[in-house]
Amino acid sequence: GLPQMRASPAVGPCAAPQQWEGRWVVYDHGTGRNSRAAVSYDSLNQRIRVLQQHKKHTPCQRFFEYIYLYKSMVMFQIDQKTKDCSKIALTAVWDPFNIPDNSTFEDQYFIGGPGDNVEVQEWSDRKPARQHETWVGVYTLKDCYPVQETYTKNSTVTTSTRFINLQLGISDPNVFSPPPTCQSARLQRMDESDC
Amino acid sequence: GLPQMRASPAVGPCAAPQQWEGRWVVYDHGTGRNSRAAVSYDSLNQRIRVLQQHKKHTPCQRFFEYIYLYKSMVMFQIDQKTKDCSKIALTAVWDPFNIPDNSTFEDQYFIGGPGDNVEVQEWSDRKPARQHETWVGVYTLKDCYPVQETYTKNSTVTTSTRFINLQLGISDPNVFSPPPTCQSARLQRMDESDC
Repeated sequence: GLPQMRASPAVGPCAAPQQWEGRWVVYDHGTGRNSRAAVSYDSLNQRIRVLQQHKKHTPCQRFFEYIYLYKSMVMFQIDQKTKDCSKIALTAVWDPFNIPDNSTFEDQYFIGGPGDNVEVQEWSDRKPARQHETWVGVYTLKDCYPVQETYTKNSTVTTSTRFINLQLGISDPNVFSPPPTCQSARLQRMDESDC
Repeated sequence: GLPQMRASPAVGPCAAPQQWEGRWVVYDHGTGRNSRAAVSYDSLNQRIRVLQQHKKHTPCQRFFEYIYLYKSMVMFQIDQKTKDCSKIALTAVWDPFNIPDNSTFEDQYFIGGPGDNVEVQEWSDRKPARQHETWVGVYTLKDCYPVQETYTKNSTVTTSTRFINLQLGISDPNVFSPPPTCQSARLQRMDESDC
């Protein structure tokens, strides 16, 4: 292969925490919209729970809870108000929030001001023969918490996710249990707009 | 006006530092490219110096130094290798990296992991009567350093800038002085691609 000219860390990627709670802000570059949610992430059991958060200035929007159970390859979509529930088959495999072993080191830097910052590393799936990367992940240097993940498709960014207010562990494992309304769930995805 | 239902901080926006040095990563949503640069920011004298940083896997690209002098409404573009210099008239007025007084408070949160994070506030130019914001700024709570700025035009994001490795003050004011080659500068902007 080509010689590596770029400075790299002595060791490979860090291992991200396997269970955490927090929030994320997902920017969808297709729609130009930010969506915020409370998130419980459980990589040990390959499941994730996303509780969409309300914003005052979106009157037409319905807000959902999403429970992804990758070991069963199923996702539950629950209307937060009516508790209407849809059960959807998952087609993609579990993709944890961590840095794959074969990732390329891109950069290391501080976010914030002097004496009030967090040091992070940036990794990507860029390979020498390919001009552009399709995934960029920013993780804290100390404990390897996710800070930002960006996915690109055909040179245009699809989504970028910023992770905030992260805490280690799952305080209430019951959040991964769908409510009773999901026992007679419909099989069609519900629309996010009501108007 | 409408009643404010959303939690707001007791005080208005903080005042960002007027002189700092650091780096930024600008994501251009039109081209899908990240560009990295070393930046010296001097709001007191309305000037900014941007030194583009090299990446090994962009063989065709020329790298420039940019010196923006808003009090003179002029920008110098200098080829880092050849020192070729272009002198371009600025058309937009000085727009400092801070939070305008009439901004809308959006959110406050921590970036990073437990015990290793930075607390930030998010502000925008969103108004109650308008659905979408055109500017979102993320600044540290403690000393009001910029973390991220996103500009949107017609509901699609134009650029998002992430600020990293920030230090207070300007260590070398000479970086704002164009080199001798700029005394006989051309008036056309130089292209970033060489091939």
